[in-house]
Amino acid sequence: MSEIRVTVWNEFVHEKTNETVKELYPDGMHEAIAGYLRQQPGLSVRTATLDEPEQGLSEEVLADTDVLTWWGHTAHDKVQDEIVDRIQARILEGMGLIVLHSGHMSKIFRRMMGTGCTLKWREAAEKERLWVVNPAHPITQGLGPYIELPHTEMYGEYFDIPELDELIFISWFEGGEVFRSGATWRRGRGKIFYFRPGHETYPIYHNPEVLKVIDNAVRWAAFAGNTEAVVGRCDCVQPLEQELQSKGV
Amino acid sequence: MSEIRVTVWNEFVHEKTNETVKELYPDGMHEAIAGYLRQQPGLSVRTATLDEPEQGLSEEVLADTDVLTWWGHTAHDKVQDEIVDRIQARILEGMGLIVLHSGHMSKIFRRMMGTGCTLKWREAAEKERLWVVNPAHPITQGLGPYIELPHTEMYGEYFDIPELDELIFISWFEGGEVFRSGATWRRGRGKIFYFRPGHETYPIYHNPEVLKVIDNAVRWAAFAGNTEAVVGRCDCVQPLEQELQSKGV
Amino acid sequence: MSEIRVTVWNEFVHEKTNETVKELYPDGMHEAIAGYLRQQPGLSVRTATLDEPEQGLSEEVLADTDVLTWWGHTAHDKVQDEIVDRIQARILEGMGLIVLHSGHMSKIFRRMMGTGCTLKWREAAEKERLWVVNPAHPITQGLGPYIELPHTEMYGEYFDIPELDELIFISWFEGGEVFRSGATWRRGRGKIFYFRPGHETYPIYHNPEVLKVIDNAVRWAAFAGNTEAVVGRCDCVQPLEQELQSKGV
Amino acid sequence: MSEIRVTVWNEFVHEKTNETVKELYPDGMHEAIAGYLRQQPGLSVRTATLDEPEQGLSEEVLADTDVLTWWGHTAHDKVQDEIVDRIQARILEGMGLIVLHSGHMSKIFRRMMGTGCTLKWREAAEKERLWVVNPAHPITQGLGPYIELPHTEMYGEYFDIPELDELIFISWFEGGEVFRSGATWRRGRGKIFYFRPGHETYPIYHNPEVLKVIDNAVRWAAFAGNTEAVVGRCDCVQPLEQELQSKGV
Repeated sequence: MSEIRVTVWNEFVHEKTNETVKELYPDGMHEAIAGYLRQQPGLSVRTATLDEPEQGLSEEVLADTDVLTWWGHTAHDKVQDEIVDRIQARILEGMGLIVLHSGHMSKIFRRMMGTGCTLKWREAAEKERLWVVNPAHPITQGLGPYIELPHTEMYGEYFDIPELDELIFISWFEGGEVFRSGATWRRGRGKIFYFRPGHETYPIYHNPEVLKVIDNAVRWAAFAGNTEAVVGRCDCVQPLEQELQSKGV
Repeated sequence: MSEIRVTVWNEFVHEKTNETVKELYPDGMHEAIAGYLRQQPGLSVRTATLDEPEQGLSEEVLADTDVLTWWGHTAHDKVQDEIVDRIQARILEGMGLIVLHSGHMSKIFRRMMGTGCTLKWREAAEKERLWVVNPAHPITQGLGPYIELPHTEMYGEYFDIPELDELIFISWFEGGEVFRSGATWRRGRGKIFYFRPGHETYPIYHNPEVLKVIDNAVRWAAFAGNTEAVVGRCDCVQPLEQELQSKGV
Repeated sequence: MSEIRVTVWNEFVHEKTNETVKELYPDGMHEAIAGYLRQQPGLSVRTATLDEPEQGLSEEVLADTDVLTWWGHTAHDKVQDEIVDRIQARILEGMGLIVLHSGHMSKIFRRMMGTGCTLKWREAAEKERLWVVNPAHPITQGLGPYIELPHTEMYGEYFDIPELDELIFISWFEGGEVFRSGATWRRGRGKIFYFRPGHETYPIYHNPEVLKVIDNAVRWAAFAGNTEAVVGRCDCVQPLEQELQSKGV
Repeated sequence: MSEIRVTVWNEFVHEKTNETVKELYPDGMHEAIAGYLRQQPGLSVRTATLDEPEQGLSEEVLADTDVLTWWGHTAHDKVQDEIVDRIQARILEGMGLIVLHSGHMSKIFRRMMGTGCTLKWREAAEKERLWVVNPAHPITQGLGPYIELPHTEMYGEYFDIPELDELIFISWFEGGEVFRSGATWRRGRGKIFYFRPGHETYPIYHNPEVLKVIDNAVRWAAFAGNTEAVVGRCDCVQPLEQELQSKGV
């Protein structure tokens, strides 16, 4: 099998404007994630950010991407609609999408979901425990029965997402809430994974278990399906059965 | 229980421009559907069409609608984006949506699905048989094991929809294709049903079994859920647990 | 619509042997549940217990039952296999089943699920909060965004159930665990709901929100589907299409 | 990755008693399937049949099996219940199961499903076309938009299975029926795939596309999940949170 081509996208704003974030992620969260993935076998990793030409996601880059990971928070509305159209088309064609943390409100995630993707939240540096609820799933490979994070931003239900295809993790929060923290959806030929952890003011993307989940998810999301079933256009077709043809309809 | 308020929307174009369609539906397909529903108990029915003010779907009309049925084909792109935004918001709030036939390419259905909703098609007046595959579902109540339609437009797989919550009908076509012809999805507090039959040049909306399905679907789609779980905004919340509060974080 | 016929089944053992349980439920947990349901409109309610003839579930009783609720704990293995066969057949035919708390290890629930239905547990009288995660579902009607129970037995993930059709509630526990506490599955024409709360040493079945959920679930689980699609036997059938018949195969 | 250990099980009865079947499969259907799989990379393949000691499925064989394929028809009731218990336990632990054609009525499939698994059928050597309805799924890799089989036994809806996790193929039959011909379910750590084609009197297991699907399914069903989340027993656990411990409950 050839290498999986991963593009790690980050809006890359907080890291340039907030000292805490800059200290945690001097080269940006995308480099923390990409740096880890580059050390794993079988992956070919690039990064892309909002302030690059075409917001880092030209037709060429997307055509050359098997799996796109997405982190955004403060600049969701700066992502151009035509770029969102382009990403959606590429997902339906077979590109995987991994949406991280505050990416739940990104244009591309809300486009793919069809819902508002709203939730409850609180910044209180509280404890989170993500419980594995699907032990057959490759995204959970190599983990314990749960992942514990000492200090996180809380996200609580109701999380306004469509019925998911597979629920992978449920979070417990110190303050009393729960959250569906890892979930998958198929859209066309593409596979989507949402993974909750990742606030910019905590060292979440230095946590080896969080990074392991992202690595697992990249491999799960890479296309390995059917290229002949038509996606993306409405073809007018002749009948396959002769009897109908012979009726001359 | 109070009456279910139904709004039957139709783009109402073919009926004014095509003689065959005009003969089948002299008052428009919306009147064929609404006329039937008005005779059923417990429903309050109105119609709305594209050429009315605000395309028939003002804030007031939507606020006064429990279930919206949708037929469109040739004028999908004439539906204004802000009307689509409005319908989507109302669905997430709890309005039911029933999408008929060529409505699969409508802006509102594609918005709610997040996919292209493309399919194969053919107009050969061929036979279709819709098999019930979920006999516990109220949408199938009062039907036989299948519905047979002597002359229909064919829609064939691959139908580019998200994984459905419930598959209700699978169609067999004379020419050799199959189709997922009845399916449901939940989005926020709203329930969505797609139902395939209904081409404008066949008397599909005069068929009593097709009309029975629409009646069943209206009753299923009317909101009867929870109004307290927050949908539509991201609230910042205080912890429910005192221990976290007392840490002063 | 005629009345929904409910049978509230209880093994009725702890209430006769344990003083705490006897005080909480002097007539048995079944009477606490049935007593509440009898006050709700449109229900016809009976009870059944393990020590009755045919363990309370004769063919006649089951044929006369639209929805069966189940509580068992210490006497699961005393339920006869032929009674379990009988209940399963009746569910596939269209009877609803509501399984409460420790009923997760009952023969009938494990039969319908095909899995072990194991979980983690702890008796520490801790706080539980059941969050609504499906606000469109009729089982959540009339509740707040969550149900809070001050003292409960803990059930924690991994809960070994099949992928559920609909996830309704997720529980948060004081001790650090989460649980899928309300879930639905369809089996044949029957609908199944598992609802976690209910330990015998706490007054859970005197809690109005818990009872409201059971009432909602009874109405949701009552059959309202299709009686013509064949369930329960493999029929050899003639082809519907003449062309195949005429080939003389 | 080490080799996937496949056990191809066959009741192996028709091939010894029916001349047509014997000619098509002189060494049994299991050898047709196993012979093909042995030529594919990364698989270690054995066969097992009903008349072997412990019906070919000792504890040792199952412990040494990653994926079990199952063909049975006339001798379902000869499979011992304790062997079925053993297979079920091994599936929940992580073994994959691929059930072929008439295996829909096998004890192990019905055990895992919880339903009757009944269907309509007809032997008329008619045409079948299996349409791909999930083009992202690895089981569909390398196929066209459909598989066409010139002469097959018909299986028609209603097929009494639980809601499936993933629908992969829908069949069209010449005589007018449809069928959910390829579907997946997760049970515990194990993955299950049902695949319809395969009647003993047609050369279905010599068809390269059918064999390709079985190969794909074997790779998909091999365990690659989480070994730490507990499956198979109910553990009593201490609270993870200190606050609860300190209450002394």
